[in-house]
Order: sequence, then C-alpha cells, then structure tokens
Amino acid sequence: MFSRLLIANRGEIALRIARACRELGIGVVAVYSSADRDSPVVRMADQAVHIGPPPPGASYLNIPNIIEAARTTGADAVHPGYGFLSEDPDFAEICAQEDLVFVGPRPEVMQRLGNKATARALMAEAGLPMLPGTIEPVASVREGAAVAAEIGYPVIIKAAAGGGGRGMAVVHEPGEFAEAFTATRASAHAVFRDPTVYVERYLTGARHVEVQIMCGLDGDGVHLGERDCSIQRRHQKLIEETPCTRLDAAGRARIGELALRGALSVGYSGAGTMEFLLDEEGRFSFMEMNTRIQVEHPVTEMVTGLDLIKEQIRVAAGLPLSLKQEDVVLTGASVECRINAEDPDRDFAPAPGPLEVFEPPSGPWTRVDSGYTAGMEVGPYYDPMLAKLVVWAPTRDEALDRMDRALAEFRVEGRGLRTTIGFHRAVIAHPTFRAGEHDLRFLERLRAGGGL
Amino acid sequence: MFSRLLIANRGEIALRIARACRELGIGVVAVYSSADRDSPVVRMADQAVHIGPPPPGASYLNIPNIIEAARTTGADAVHPGYGFLSEDPDFAEICAQEDLVFVGPRPEVMQRLGNKATARALMAEAGLPMLPGTIEPVASVREGAAVAAEIGYPVIIKAAAGGGGRGMAVVHEPGEFAEAFTATRASAHAVFRDPTVYVERYLTGARHVEVQIMCGLDGDGVHLGERDCSIQRRHQKLIEETPCTRLDAAGRARIGELALRGALSVGYSGAGTMEFLLDEEGRFSFMEMNTRIQVEHPVTEMVTGLDLIKEQIRVAAGLPLSLKQEDVVLTGASVECRINAEDPDRDFAPAPGPLEVFEPPSGPWTRVDSGYTAGMEVGPYYDPMLAKLVVWAPTRDEALDRMDRALAEFRVEGRGLRTTIGFHRAVIAHPTFRAGEHDLRFLERLRAGGGL
Repeated sequence: MFSRLLIANRGEIALRIARACRELGIGVVAVYSSADRDSPVVRMADQAVHIGPPPPGASYLNIPNIIEAARTTGADAVHPGYGFLSEDPDFAEICAQEDLVFVGPRPEVMQRLGNKATARALMAEAGLPMLPGTIEPVASVREGAAVAAEIGYPVIIKAAAGGGGRGMAVVHEPGEFAEAFTATRASAHAVFRDPTVYVERYLTGARHVEVQIMCGLDGDGVHLGERDCSIQRRHQKLIEETPCTRLDAAGRARIGELALRGALSVGYSGAGTMEFLLDEEGRFSFMEMNTRIQVEHPVTEMVTGLDLIKEQIRVAAGLPLSLKQEDVVLTGASVECRINAEDPDRDFAPAPGPLEVFEPPSGPWTRVDSGYTAGMEVGPYYDPMLAKLVVWAPTRDEALDRMDRALAEFRVEGRGLRTTIGFHRAVIAHPTFRAGEHDLRFLERLRAGGGL
Repeated sequence: MFSRLLIANRGEIALRIARACRELGIGVVAVYSSADRDSPVVRMADQAVHIGPPPPGASYLNIPNIIEAARTTGADAVHPGYGFLSEDPDFAEICAQEDLVFVGPRPEVMQRLGNKATARALMAEAGLPMLPGTIEPVASVREGAAVAAEIGYPVIIKAAAGGGGRGMAVVHEPGEFAEAFTATRASAHAVFRDPTVYVERYLTGARHVEVQIMCGLDGDGVHLGERDCSIQRRHQKLIEETPCTRLDAAGRARIGELALRGALSVGYSGAGTMEFLLDEEGRFSFMEMNTRIQVEHPVTEMVTGLDLIKEQIRVAAGLPLSLKQEDVVLTGASVECRINAEDPDRDFAPAPGPLEVFEPPSGPWTRVDSGYTAGMEVGPYYDPMLAKLVVWAPTRDEALDRMDRALAEFRVEGRGLRTTIGFHRAVIAHPTFRAGEHDLRFLERLRAGGGL
C-alpha cells in the first residue's frame, strides 16, 4: 500500500479522499490555494502544501507546483478527485514519469476516452448502442446540417472535448442550426481549446442513466448498478438517485454488462462511469465515459456497501478488486441532492456569501459530504457546491421522505447567500418526480409553466 | 397513523424520535425542562411545551405535566425514549386512560418484565437458559449466603428493580457476602425504592450479548441480530458492536430464536432487548429484558437497514411488522462509541462544561446521534453522553479503522470539559479488543495493569 498520497483537489472530495486514506493507514498530503488555507482537509492532513493563488490555473491546475509538492513531501501516489486535473492524460503521464502512482486509468486510455468522438467510435466498435448521429467530428455548417437533416430534428451539437454539461446546444429546427453550430464551436474553442463538435439525435422524454464500473489491473471488473441523474439545469446534475425508476432487473443487468464490456474493451482500470440516455421505450444510447470518480458516487456506495474511493486506491496500489460480480448486492434506494450556493429564482446564478450559520442534518442513513464548516466563506473562485446531502432507505418513497426531513433540518444562513435547499424540497414534493415519471426536461417544463 | 406524537424525553433520543416522526408525516410535540430550552429538538418540533425545572422529578418524570402537555397540544401518542418514564408501567397505564397510545408494550407486560426476579421466572418457564442462582428473591443474609455457597463463588447480588448497570455487586468469597448483601439492599432501596435482591453465579470471561427483537400486536415477531456490549465501566456500556465476535451463525440463530420465544411467551409487542451473558464455552444465560428502545439501537439499524424507531411507531399504530424473519439480512459490521463528557483518568467522573468547539465527524457510513450543537452547555442535571458515534463497514476490521478515523476527526473543546474520545481510540487500538478476544473484565484488568 502507499505510504503517502497527495490529494490534487479541494473541497468535499479532498476531504472524502483524506478520510479514505486515514482508514487505509495512508499518510495524507493536502495541497491548497490561498483561498483554501482554513479548509478542513488542510487541518486534517499530515502535511499541507500551499500551491498558489486562487485561480485554478495558478494552483489546482498548476502541474509543476503539484509535482513539486509531491516531491518535497515524499508522496508516492496522487488522487485527482473530479474536475481540475482528473481527466488530464498529460498530468497522469507526468505523474508516471515522476514515479508517482496516478489513481485512475492509464494515460493512453484516458486520452482515447476523453475525446467524446473517439470514445463514441470505440464504444460503437465494442457493440454499445448509439444514438443516430455522427461518430466522426463534423467540420462545417453544411456537413452538420446535412447530418441533422438525415437523423431528424431535434438534434444536439456537442463539443468533443466537452464535459460537465458545458459545450452543448439543442437545435429544434433547421433554421436554427447554423447559428447554434457556430456558437458551440466558438465556445468549445474558448473553454476547451478544441473547436471539434459532433451532432446527434436529441431524445425527448429521455433520462440520464449512468453505470458505475470498477475495473482491476488484470482485465477484470464489476458493474455496480446505475444512477439516474435526470434532474438537471443547464445540463448539470442537481439530484441523483439509484435505482432508476424506469429500469427493471433485466434492463439493469443488460446495461451493466454493456457498460463493463465497453470499459474492458479499451483496457480500462479503476473507477469509471458510462453515461447513457434511456428513452421512453427503454432503449439505451451511449453518451460518454467519465474516467474518474463522480460527484454522485455516494448513492452507489449507499446501495452496494462498497467504499469506491478506497477501492480506487486499492486498485491503483495493485491489489485485486475486493469483490466479484456475484458479490454485488444492490439494497434499497439512495438519493443525493446537491446543496449549492445558488439562487433558484435567478436561474441558479451563483449566490455566495459567508456561512454565518451552517448546520448540516444528521440521523439514520443521512450522510453529508461537505468541505465547509460554519464561519467559512463561500468564495467566487470555485464551483458553488456547499454540500452533498445523501440518504438511503429500503424503498425510494422512504428515501424521499428521509431526504425531505433532512433538507428541512439543514440550516444555512449568511448575508447574500442563497441555496438550493427549498428548490430540492419542491422537486421532491412534485407528483411527477415522486412517481418517478420525470425526464431530462422536467425542470425546463416546470419553469416554462411557472411551477417551482 | 398518528397525527401528533409527544416525545417524553430529551437529548439525542428525542431528536432521533422527532426525525422518525417527520419522515412518517407525524407532527412533533417536544417537552422540555428549563435547562433544555435551546436544544435542537425544541427548535425542530411543531409544538414545544415547557414542563418544569431541570431536576427530572419536576419535568421529565413529572407525569401530570407531561399528560397536560399532551392534552393541550392534541397529541394522540407518546414515545418515552429510554430512561425516564420509558419502563414505568404506571405511566403507560395513565397514557391508556387518557386515550394516548404509549409506544411500547402493554403496561401489564412491562410490569412483569420490569422486575428482574419475575422476568427470570417467566423466561425460565419459556425455556431460556439461566445462570445458577435464585429465581425467587432472597430475603436475608443467611438465605443469600446459603444460595451463594450452593452455586459457588464468585456470585453477583442484583437489585430486582435495578437497571442501567446500577444496583449490583460482585462477591468473590464468603467472607464478603454479608456486607455486600446489606449494601446492595440499602442502595436498591434508596435508588429504586425496592430493596428486593437476588443472587446468581458471576461468570468470569463472559461477554454481554443482547438480542434486538421487534414484535407485532398479533403474537408475531422477528429477531434482528445481536449486539455485543462487553466494553463496560461500572456495569455501564461504552462500546457496542454487532456482530459479536464470539458467535457463529448457528449460535446467532439459536440465541435469536430463544429471545423471540421468550418475548412472545409473555405477549410482548414493540421493540425489546433480551440481555444474556455468553461464557467462554459459548453457553448463554438470560439476564434481563429491556422493554424499550436501547441507546445502542443504531448498530442494529446499520446492519439490518431497518429504522427501529419508525417500526416501533408503526407497530404502536396498529400496522403490521414491515418485515418477516426471512427478510432479515444482517450485512457487515457496526460499532458504536459513546462520547461522554467524562474524565477517563478520574474513573470516568463527569466532566461537563461549555461546548466551545463541537464538530462531529462525517463521511461514508459515519453516523452521529447527538442532542448538542456548538455553543451549548453540558449541564450537571442529565447523563453526560454528548453523542453516539456509529460506523458501519463490510467487516469488523474495516469498521474499527473507520471508527478510529471518525474519532480522530471529532473535535470537542471547552473549559473543564473532558471526553471519552481518546479512551475509545486506545481501546480500539488494543490488540485484545482488535482480535475480538475481550470480555466484560477487559477494562478492569487493563486499569489494574496500568494500561489505558
């Protein structure tokens, strides 16, 4: 096992990784920007290294400073968390050159799966069902419009290098195509430094369903159930749950096997997520693969009993997977609400401020993963997620009752601060969501209709 | 289902019950003494009624005031928690007369099981294994000494009305018997207003193993695994865990069936605990039955997935049990540490004070049940338990690693305040406990040897 692991991240996921290290007897090395000096993970770490000012490019994306921190602290492994450098194959490559074990798949595998167009081609080859559309990137408005005409509107234009819900546009009719195409390419170039886009069918009534997989170093792996992440705003997840109400046992087994087959076909190792769209007829289409731990991993932990972060670390250290497919038992239901410092009444604009009161709920099967404590300030530099509130219960109904109780208990107050707590309670009380009959356009439709 | 439930208790268990009510859609009525005005359950409750000054006799044991609070708030049920009025059949009887459903067994069943000597006789009749000793109370030193001589030393003298580890004395040789007998009777008279005592064999090397049962109103019931509570000081539990390392599957099934049989033989309903001693040869002896929820119920919840408080309330409301014996699956291992405001270096003397810092740990499978928040004062009136820290993991070893991590994270500071946090970490690191080879005299022996 590793002796010291450097956590190349911040906030709740850095604390989550630190806890896993502690339980495994691994020393914790934290890195922090000037804005995060007083964060809990810095206090908990055995060693903490300042790596620069708040802008990510100067600290959490600053590879030389992070490598230098690993060198001076004697770390022998690096966990990238999610976001920041977690899907950067160059960083993984540099770690390898520095004799640091990168907790994640091999750099060449990351590279191939990181480009959405390449990933689509690979997964189509592995036999995964695809949406009608281009597998190869589309270079011009004319080519794109021709593809769109062929597969039929609505279509979605996606940046090949995109992720986290950014760099995509839905186009409902031919007259809108040219403008959307140009805008998406421009924004992809600006945000991801790569203007490549592709076009595919946009499904209406679809759900976002993703499969958690965990692969060993020897071509083995397990699938660990699905997560339904259909409650989104601007293509970003707000509520995640497992199981998906639109899946039966046969569908679950099929999608799990497909996801694992796809991952193993490219020599994947470690934790990964295969994202699919599930249409109203129960058909799946592959969207993309995330080669890192996800924000919403706790709901999978709650129903499987498996600590995904510890398992990532064990696999990276060369240990065999701690369970086989036949040992995977999915029990009950789990839901996660992202508590963001955002104003739901102003289209979820960031609404940061000082956490004058910050009292997370507690109680049975109520888990709060947060990088904040009372008295801290939610700053403008990083994403506005204050906490992940996760519950479990034997049934979905009971889990939603528990979530509502926990949301009601959550106290967050501060000048200028707004949160998504009340919004989550309204969604949970909504008959369509409660019945499990929502889809990806649930929020959009509700807001158009004046609801919530 | 009930519309409003009055919680006749305080602290963490009152909050625990309030959470269960919220999740069941039941209105919460809290009662509080002047010392508990600012406690979280008062803030969470729909209605909160002041019932008197801090001394329990004037408030939490003040039946007229509690009944009056139920009347004025329109409550239709009462949950007594543990301690205070939870095992008082007169209170249960009065509730029934007032058309308030008491969440617990019928008063006459409580009555019979509340007296340890009567309970022993009933359980012997039901076929439960007993320790050598008297089933009938012993009235004089001469009679007691004769019993002790017959069953062999060491013996233990126990108050029939005792509970919570009070009212008992171990006697190692005949010369000590008379003095211990007289002292125990006097203390039983003073504390429990009943001098009745009995005498039984004192087992060395034994473990405290108790079985959680849950019975419906129709003579049905389930057993929900055991809890090992062998880490005790002055006969009071400090660490509880499940499963017990000294039990195999056959032993577990046998003790579960015995416990359930005993409870059903007396017409039991609701949640109850049958306490046994388990000797080094794997033999069980019945000790007593607790006719209420226990402090340590969360470890059972963690391995069964069943919310015991909700289930108590459902049963009291006349609903059928939510599971059958074949649905009971025990998964993994769970451990609870009682975080007390006590000084382990001064024989666990109370060490209360202001909670200037109070930051409980969090993270995966880490549950903290507490009635305190930062800024509150731990007063002298009530028991000094600050929090119950409960963890779960697939294996006992992993659970203990997680507990140590969580204990290390727990920050409690205040002038004059001492806690059991460091003590727990020392126990968890001890090879004998880690190997699961400890018994009831573990602490005593360690302290005699200068350890811990």
